[in-house]
Amino acid sequence: MIQTDILIIGAGPTGLFTVFEAGLLKLKCHLIDALPQPGGQCSELYPKKPIYDIPGFPEVLAGDLTSNLLEQGKQFEPGFTLGERAETIEKQEDGSFIVTTNKGTQHQAPVVAIAGGLGSFEPRKPLIENIANYEDHGVDYFIKDPEKYRGKRVVISGGGDSALDWSIFLADIASEVTLIHRRNEFRGALDSVEKVQELKLLGKINLVTPAEVVGVSGQNHIEGVTVKKGDEEFQLDTDFFIPLFGLSPKLGPIGNWGLEIEKNAIKVDNALDYQTNIPGIYAIGDVNTYPGKLKLILCGFHEATLMCQSAYKIINPGKKYVLKYTTVSGIDGFDGTRKEAPKAVVQAIV
Amino acid sequence: MIQTDILIIGAGPTGLFTVFEAGLLKLKCHLIDALPQPGGQCSELYPKKPIYDIPGFPEVLAGDLTSNLLEQGKQFEPGFTLGERAETIEKQEDGSFIVTTNKGTQHQAPVVAIAGGLGSFEPRKPLIENIANYEDHGVDYFIKDPEKYRGKRVVISGGGDSALDWSIFLADIASEVTLIHRRNEFRGALDSVEKVQELKLLGKINLVTPAEVVGVSGQNHIEGVTVKKGDEEFQLDTDFFIPLFGLSPKLGPIGNWGLEIEKNAIKVDNALDYQTNIPGIYAIGDVNTYPGKLKLILCGFHEATLMCQSAYKIINPGKKYVLKYTTVSGIDGFDGTRKEAPKAVVQAIV
Ligand SMILES: Cc1cc2nc3c(=O)[nH]c(=O)nc-3n(C[C@H](O)[C@H](O)[C@H](O)COP(=O)(O)OP(=O)(O)OC[C@H]3O[C@@H](n4cnc5c(N)ncnc54)[C@H](O)[C@@H]3O)c2cc1C
Ligand SMILES: Cc1cc2nc3c(=O)[nH]c(=O)nc-3n(C[C@H](O)[C@H](O)[C@H](O)COP(=O)(O)OP(=O)(O)OC[C@H]3O[C@@H](n4cnc5c(N)ncnc54)[C@H](O)[C@@H]3O)c2cc1C
Repeated sequence: MIQTDILIIGAGPTGLFTVFEAGLLKLKCHLIDALPQPGGQCSELYPKKPIYDIPGFPEVLAGDLTSNLLEQGKQFEPGFTLGERAETIEKQEDGSFIVTTNKGTQHQAPVVAIAGGLGSFEPRKPLIENIANYEDHGVDYFIKDPEKYRGKRVVISGGGDSALDWSIFLADIASEVTLIHRRNEFRGALDSVEKVQELKLLGKINLVTPAEVVGVSGQNHIEGVTVKKGDEEFQLDTDFFIPLFGLSPKLGPIGNWGLEIEKNAIKVDNALDYQTNIPGIYAIGDVNTYPGKLKLILCGFHEATLMCQSAYKIINPGKKYVLKYTTVSGIDGFDGTRKEAPKAVVQAIV
Repeated sequence: MIQTDILIIGAGPTGLFTVFEAGLLKLKCHLIDALPQPGGQCSELYPKKPIYDIPGFPEVLAGDLTSNLLEQGKQFEPGFTLGERAETIEKQEDGSFIVTTNKGTQHQAPVVAIAGGLGSFEPRKPLIENIANYEDHGVDYFIKDPEKYRGKRVVISGGGDSALDWSIFLADIASEVTLIHRRNEFRGALDSVEKVQELKLLGKINLVTPAEVVGVSGQNHIEGVTVKKGDEEFQLDTDFFIPLFGLSPKLGPIGNWGLEIEKNAIKVDNALDYQTNIPGIYAIGDVNTYPGKLKLILCGFHEATLMCQSAYKIINPGKKYVLKYTTVSGIDGFDGTRKEAPKAVVQAIV
């Protein structure tokens, strides 16, 4: 059982900044995310695009914002359960909560902060009858660890940035990369399209277009796919089939936790601390709603900060916290590091 | 009369970010600040110190944050009335407000956003009886334009960073710089203390310590100061006397505008839009108070953003605004510039 002070569901920008604000209050955090990497929408949907409305950044790439937030929180040593979806929550007699994922991992904490954005990111799956049998047995919807594919044959399917970028990346790792798309046209960054064109001409990527994977086969593990190109169907031997048709967020199981839901979002008390109707459970960032709510990154930062103050009171009953400026008090990491402003000197001039 | 959409009182980080958020909604802003430069506490009190809790910045100097915010908002061409204090407000029949400064400058807008922080920064003045007669006639508490002192004799008084830094800066501009402090010890950045020591040894700064300026004299303009050193008193001819004893913020005239005040701050409706008890007047950033309020920069950013949405409805009655992501829609500056994310291409690979 993983134990922590604040259990955060969702490792998007809101969840990541919560780690930092909680750390200032000496509270430890653990994050659960369905995605294999932190960053939420920023890393999954538009990592290479600029955002213009993060205060103090005239322009920042969504991927860089994610890295910065990870860097900012790292001295507070957050824990991560990635690639798993928070499925159930149970309140304990001592007031704490136990949250269990779809893979059975259990987490216990006195406070739960739902920073689930638009919901858990779930892959769009191809309509192939028996595909579920091969999930985790050669069919992958995410790439968690590219090393898994070293020296193997992979078939990637899709026509957007993910399909392009992973084909490029795996061309150097896999023994054979086949990219299948139902059109000749791909939609993505110009760089990526051009690079795939180049690798195709070099024979490092086999391109099959316009075509579709319509079947998967194999004993316990996938061994081949059936490809339909025009009226023709043929078999292609492969060790992995990776459909990259995009991810779509679904509020999912959290919708059944007894929380007040409005327009697919969780109602919170914005006049105080972004707590939900269940004491001890907060909702911050895109996942919550209240009068005047804006689904913007900068709003999640504020909500996370006020939420942590309220969580502090639950975790340290009766203790009073006096706000300190980071500039004045510095930052003491849980890893023993300290950051502080250079001190002024008092020195005679003679 | 200066006309604008949102009149912002206070050019601290909250006021500066308001310019940007208002600009996204095609609303123009004008800022009034008692200080000669924008940045509020960040630029006046700790420009060279790091802040650690601005989201996405593991560390940023307060002065750099100010520059970044100015840069982020500049395409929306904010107007500035600097070095003047907003003194009175009058509601007009058409619902707009006229705000007049201590120097008589008038501003008119349908919406007023008070982003006044801890209040208008007012200089701590030395206790010299007739000093008020020489204000703006050789006695300056701020340095707005250093060129004013070129080739002139200046006496600076104070023992902190401002006194040190301006003595260093003016040593190359003024014909003579005298630095007077009531102790031998100065309190400031090590660099600055060492630099003043060096300039003193080079004869470029006259140091008089421990001593105090106890009198000022001259016809219409200051001509000299009386210095007390131990039991001895003597006259020093000078063209300017610049006491730099620090600034302290005072809520000041805003306290008498009929706004609900609590603990020296303005009460606002945090459950909706940070509006005060007077419709059309908002209070954002350090200057406001509500249950759970934290006087942090990142909170001012959120408050400013929600406030602008509400102001939009006052300024464009009946019009509906649909939130757009900057990443998706780009930014159209009032100066004709456009920022936008590189577009994806749709291109065949053959
Ligand atoms: C194309 C695009 C452009 C955008 N541009 C801007 C912009 O310019 N400015 C701006 O401010 N915002 C922009 N946004 C919105 C911005 O990305 C979101 O406001 C932000 O990501 C919300 O952060 P969050 O941390 O609240 O949620 P998210 O980023 O959505 O992260 C939530 C995370 O929680 C996880 N999760 C949810 N439920 C579960 C569960 N049950 N178990 C496990 N994990 C779960 C999800 O997998 C996800 O990773 C844009 C969004 C898009 C798509
Ligand atoms: C040493 C120090 C360290 C700090 N460290 C941190 C930190 O680490 N993190 C953090 O988040 N915050 C920190 N703060 C606090 C932070 O600086 C404030 O939260 C922030 O400056 C508030 O911004 P603001 O724009 O609301 O107000 P301010 O920065 O106070 O700006 C308000 C402006 O309004 C002007 N004004 C007020 N009334 C009038 C009037 N009637 N007419 C004209 N002008 C007027 C003032 O002159 C001032 O320039 C620190 C503060 C100090 C002093």
